[in-house]
Amino acid sequence: MDNHTNGPIEDLGVVLGVDGGTTNTVCVCLPYGSTGQVKCLSRAVAGSSNRNSVGENAAMETLENVMKEALSMAERDWSEVRAVCLAVSGVNHPSDQKRLLDWLRMKFPSHVKFYVENDAVAALASGTMGKLHGCVLIAGTGSIAYGITEDGREARAAGAGPVLGDWGSGYGIAAQALTAVIKAHDGRGPLTRLTDNILKELQLSSPDEVIGWTYADASWARIAALVPVVVSSAIEGDEVANKILHESVCDLADCVIAVVRRLQLCGEDGKGRFPLVMVGGVLESNKKWDIGKEVTKCISKVYPGINPIQPEVEPAVGAALLAWHMCTKEGKTVQNGT
Amino acid sequence: MDNHTNGPIEDLGVVLGVDGGTTNTVCVCLPYGSTGQVKCLSRAVAGSSNRNSVGENAAMETLENVMKEALSMAERDWSEVRAVCLAVSGVNHPSDQKRLLDWLRMKFPSHVKFYVENDAVAALASGTMGKLHGCVLIAGTGSIAYGITEDGREARAAGAGPVLGDWGSGYGIAAQALTAVIKAHDGRGPLTRLTDNILKELQLSSPDEVIGWTYADASWARIAALVPVVVSSAIEGDEVANKILHESVCDLADCVIAVVRRLQLCGEDGKGRFPLVMVGGVLESNKKWDIGKEVTKCISKVYPGINPIQPEVEPAVGAALLAWHMCTKEGKTVQNGT
Repeated sequence: MDNHTNGPIEDLGVVLGVDGGTTNTVCVCLPYGSTGQVKCLSRAVAGSSNRNSVGENAAMETLENVMKEALSMAERDWSEVRAVCLAVSGVNHPSDQKRLLDWLRMKFPSHVKFYVENDAVAALASGTMGKLHGCVLIAGTGSIAYGITEDGREARAAGAGPVLGDWGSGYGIAAQALTAVIKAHDGRGPLTRLTDNILKELQLSSPDEVIGWTYADASWARIAALVPVVVSSAIEGDEVANKILHESVCDLADCVIAVVRRLQLCGEDGKGRFPLVMVGGVLESNKKWDIGKEVTKCISKVYPGINPIQPEVEPAVGAALLAWHMCTKEGKTVQNGT
Repeated sequence: MDNHTNGPIEDLGVVLGVDGGTTNTVCVCLPYGSTGQVKCLSRAVAGSSNRNSVGENAAMETLENVMKEALSMAERDWSEVRAVCLAVSGVNHPSDQKRLLDWLRMKFPSHVKFYVENDAVAALASGTMGKLHGCVLIAGTGSIAYGITEDGREARAAGAGPVLGDWGSGYGIAAQALTAVIKAHDGRGPLTRLTDNILKELQLSSPDEVIGWTYADASWARIAALVPVVVSSAIEGDEVANKILHESVCDLADCVIAVVRRLQLCGEDGKGRFPLVMVGGVLESNKKWDIGKEVTKCISKVYPGINPIQPEVEPAVGAALLAWHMCTKEGKTVQNGT
């Protein structure tokens, strides 16, 4: 999008982009009709809007509040909204989409366009500046790989939460580290520096206390916050921590490989190029033990045409760009809310 | 305990034994002073009393209600109680014991003796008829191995709940099966009969719906209830289900081996005999794929002196026998509540 205008821009209303993660929910408000650099009118932040983590009512309350705050900060009204893209983690099934679409229709006038998807879609759009093509890997508190072809076929892998084996996620890495502490303590596993490092971080005096700490609060984000301790233990040379990180790298790479294979994103010979947008704290956490770089290396052994992208804008802006494209009808496959 | 009396027995009050599991809590009331066959005056059942699963307040409410009901069914009063043994899953640390002891002291007169331990202790006592020596392996919704030597040294392994890697438990087996369904669906894992069998059991139409089902209710027991589906899938010849069960067998055996090694329960040469009490639905679930038998086989490769015991009384009776022994001072290492 090049800037074609220098004079005052006609006010054509706004679009809202919401990135609803398991830890935070971000809403940005963009002016509709501006064709220059992406310039947010406002940005609001709230807590989790993943219904699988915090429950349906709390998730919807968070979504409503964060949109209200973004509009208020931009000094705009609900009536000025042209389109909304909710990209929310935990949206896994058409019934999840339908519930949020029905809810949006009650909140907004009937002419407003809606797009409800998993948060992975916004993350992809943040790396491709609104173009829906390629694959995205998110590894924050949770993890998911999502891909879409130029003709609109979609696939995803993981994104099913901790009970269902998202072991490459921040939660998965930290839960395995806590397990290693318990196993070392009760004689089932090797001694590890994770014990001292995690006890120090949590200000606990014994591994027995880790059990109570773990179950005192069911929030996934609280567990995932231990990832930097696992990374620093691995950098110190701890074998157990290194093994956890290496296995997580494989798990994350497997997610992308499964998506690329199912969509034939690299063509039939597997040699074609494809954008891989990489998002989330786990993939950025540390330059000395760079999980994102290792994941890329692992995938490129199978699909050498990988083109890794670190997005320059955040996923909420990706969501807003999708809403924007939907209004201009430039967007592809953005039919499900109209 | 032989029956030495045939005439009317002097009424010396009662003892209460509580087996507090992650799925159910059972309380039995035994007459104190009877030296014949164990004969329960009453038996009451309630829900989970594991504070890590249902929270502290709900757990204590369950414990109070189940004791109240057992006394009422036996037509006895709180004032007639001589001793109480609470053997509750989720009691992992001296602070957990202290909290329950303080609570018991508020409920009962000061002369009553208390014994608070992990539910594993009652399960052991149920197999040894109150003698605290040997090892017990519980694999129900959760899993734990607990051992005690004749001179009172204790050790345990696992029992730390699903976040902390109790993969041999009923919850662990079922969660891995659900994960296999997701992985087969998104292209990360092999196809498995678990998909059809679990979808049928849960009356769902697609693997996508498994995610919503899993997180709709945080109860561990609800997940663990899928174990029979995993076992039947393994019997049908499904490789994924068989792999999950074989790995669970190894995980359960590892727990016992760790405890036996730390306590030197088989002597310094590792050849001595020791009782292994085996309790819980996972170890009894199916004769065609006998998880308990496989666990025993696996342990006996390392410790050939294993003497597996299937208890003839339930763990709550084991708890009551511990309370009974405590009063007669025949019991060992039952000091912590006095």
